Amino acid sequence: MSSEKTSNSVDLVIRAGRLLTMRPGAAPINDMEVHIKDGKIAAIEPSEEGASHSSVETIDASGCLVMPGLINAHTHAAMTLFRGLADDMPLKQWLFEKIFPAEAEYLSPHNVYWSAMLAFGEMISSGTTCFSDGYFFQDKTFDAAIKVGIRGVIAQGVIDFPAPGVPDPEKNLDVGTKFIERWKGFSSLLTPSLFCHSPVTCSEKTLIGAMEICDSGGVPMQIHLSETLEEVNTIMGQKGIRPAYYLDRIGILKESLIAVHCVHLEDEEIRLLKERGTRVVHCPESNMKLASGVCAAEKIINAGIPLGLGTDGCASNNDLDMLREMDSAAKLSKVSSGAPTSLKAEVILRCATIEGARALGLDQEIGSIEIGKRADIIVVDLDKPHLQPLYDPISSIVYSANGGDVRDVIVEGKVLMRERKLLTVDMEEVMWNIKKIAKQIQG
Amino acid sequence: MSSEKTSNSVDLVIRAGRLLTMRPGAAPINDMEVHIKDGKIAAIEPSEEGASHSSVETIDASGCLVMPGLINAHTHAAMTLFRGLADDMPLKQWLFEKIFPAEAEYLSPHNVYWSAMLAFGEMISSGTTCFSDGYFFQDKTFDAAIKVGIRGVIAQGVIDFPAPGVPDPEKNLDVGTKFIERWKGFSSLLTPSLFCHSPVTCSEKTLIGAMEICDSGGVPMQIHLSETLEEVNTIMGQKGIRPAYYLDRIGILKESLIAVHCVHLEDEEIRLLKERGTRVVHCPESNMKLASGVCAAEKIINAGIPLGLGTDGCASNNDLDMLREMDSAAKLSKVSSGAPTSLKAEVILRCATIEGARALGLDQEIGSIEIGKRADIIVVDLDKPHLQPLYDPISSIVYSANGGDVRDVIVEGKVLMRERKLLTVDMEEVMWNIKKIAKQIQG
Repeated sequence: MSSEKTSNSVDLVIRAGRLLTMRPGAAPINDMEVHIKDGKIAAIEPSEEGASHSSVETIDASGCLVMPGLINAHTHAAMTLFRGLADDMPLKQWLFEKIFPAEAEYLSPHNVYWSAMLAFGEMISSGTTCFSDGYFFQDKTFDAAIKVGIRGVIAQGVIDFPAPGVPDPEKNLDVGTKFIERWKGFSSLLTPSLFCHSPVTCSEKTLIGAMEICDSGGVPMQIHLSETLEEVNTIMGQKGIRPAYYLDRIGILKESLIAVHCVHLEDEEIRLLKERGTRVVHCPESNMKLASGVCAAEKIINAGIPLGLGTDGCASNNDLDMLREMDSAAKLSKVSSGAPTSLKAEVILRCATIEGARALGLDQEIGSIEIGKRADIIVVDLDKPHLQPLYDPISSIVYSANGGDVRDVIVEGKVLMRERKLLTVDMEEVMWNIKKIAKQIQG
Repeated sequence: MSSEKTSNSVDLVIRAGRLLTMRPGAAPINDMEVHIKDGKIAAIEPSEEGASHSSVETIDASGCLVMPGLINAHTHAAMTLFRGLADDMPLKQWLFEKIFPAEAEYLSPHNVYWSAMLAFGEMISSGTTCFSDGYFFQDKTFDAAIKVGIRGVIAQGVIDFPAPGVPDPEKNLDVGTKFIERWKGFSSLLTPSLFCHSPVTCSEKTLIGAMEICDSGGVPMQIHLSETLEEVNTIMGQKGIRPAYYLDRIGILKESLIAVHCVHLEDEEIRLLKERGTRVVHCPESNMKLASGVCAAEKIINAGIPLGLGTDGCASNNDLDMLREMDSAAKLSKVSSGAPTSLKAEVILRCATIEGARALGLDQEIGSIEIGKRADIIVVDLDKPHLQPLYDPISSIVYSANGGDVRDVIVEGKVLMRERKLLTVDMEEVMWNIKKIAKQIQG
């Protein structure tokens, strides 16, 4: 194929990079070219020396790694607003004395919009092209995501307490139904969903109702599951069985459920999740910071369950950097299992890409660089002091890189960041608004 | 005091920053000015609006945090050369099958010089102004550090095996003696020292001899202590007592000993270290990655032992970023102890600054911003999306910042990095050399 012929039939060419497709077993290949047309990957071929793509938008990725965009499979985007507001506290005190009151007082559609914008600015700057979110005033998170052009699963929070935007908990499912109806099919980039806070904070009726709404909409449902020992003990006390069994008994442990945290699962529960097809998301840094415990990530992966990786919200992490999250996940797995061979670099990189896509039900669309898939791609600059020498790009990405090393970001074929300049987020405007809101919060 | 008067008597002014001195209990103060004269901190005072320092070199730190430079209390600088060469392996296999053979084949004065230069470039870029190092061909690490102008404790490695530059282990103490003699007093920035690899790889005679040499030179001695369970078991088998007791029995557990790792210390051993005045360095990321275990950092701090923080070498971390190391240390302490209140942000920040200085015996000179101390200062840009909103600068530094957020770096009053541009390291030259050497290693 001549490069001229190619040029005429594509919208964007990423050339001369070292390509890491994340297809199973595929090693990084030097000097490859990815052609993008109509938001999809149209061709992958060796870069021709001196080939001209003058008529086509081109990204020169020489010296860089070209790889699938990172997938942050669990976060609460607008909680960037509470980054650093309350650290070093027990989870329950942190949640009930700090976070819930701050949310009650300061969450508003306006504040959620700007906080989500801040989150998306941070996500794109650090190579995340797809996120899965659960929070309140989520119409505003949709608005922000649409403005920015990032991909995501955006879930309306469901909880049996008065919540931001849902003062009457009796109406939480009505709000959920309308949310799914409003946003279903609105954008090819964004999927609406419901996020039940936990088996403790949502009643059986609420959990079942939320799943029915998600089933009707053909969308996944998300829940925090077995995040703390206290949750497990509460459910054991109330229901006489462990949380995963409880969700199974009420019929919601199934393929469309995304179970987040899963810190306190017994082996039998892991087997049950596998049997039911439930997907899991691991948030190691949040679990570490809140001292919730250690998710047996490798065991879950070895059981054949799709395991995504998430940063959780910025109030308990305190950043959205998936490159750092991979490093933490791998190291935590090693030290907690006593096996330095645990959760190898490539395995955790799969969680942050293709397995994350699988956890969100999006693996036919994204998560790897393959012809026909959506063009969600990042270009990472490997020519930096802290990434050299470069014996193994996967090791560099997982153990040495951080968000600041991501140079270019493409979602659905559209360049959202180029040479570290965000093209769809006006960060000055965002920061101006965030500082104004934070001033009110700090008082 | 008029600013003009001030201007005439100082060499460098850092103005309008938020100042974090790291003096006990001192909160960050807005709009402060630090005056530097002859490499020392000459004055600390409120910034005067519109004050002119036109005749003096000035750093405008508006919107930034001005704080003491970070102290990496344990590393092997030139091991940057082996970054990413061997990951996800058991410590013994990693060390004996990968690292020792690579060192035997590829370490040379030339390669150590450029690898140390790479390390210093990375350190300065991420806010480290002082490091403590143990390795081989250390004359070259001295040369590189002198060229760069960074502060450090540089220790010649001592091990009872043939080692790079010391093929005959019988001569390891002679080499050590000459090393201390050569470099003692050579530079106000650099202290020579000896680094005994471990109680297992150095004989009793070697350990005692090394301590005698350090004592004669009035310099500290460093050792890896109780890094792995295997080491503890070996010493128990050989000596009938645990490693800390063994070092005490042979008389080297004392104030001038810097004990690194201390992962497997029993409470009685912690008490003994405290009694003897021994200092400890905690390397959480390396201990995690090699699955060595978890150092009871908080217990050691609470016992009143000076605890520094270190990245360890790049073959087991794989970076030299002290900002990330603080985050990992705090989170690891919380999850391993089950207490989210463990190792609070301010406590670990003290380990990376003033307590690190204390661990190295340098707390009279560095580690905090106080009049009369050496001017080792960094300016961190807090006006970034992932650091906003900013409720608490200490939280931002520990839980959200990374090395790339450090803007300016000053050591002994000399600016080594300004607006992220390294002024004393030619990174292009360093990278060119490192890539050339790495090509030989990769084959």
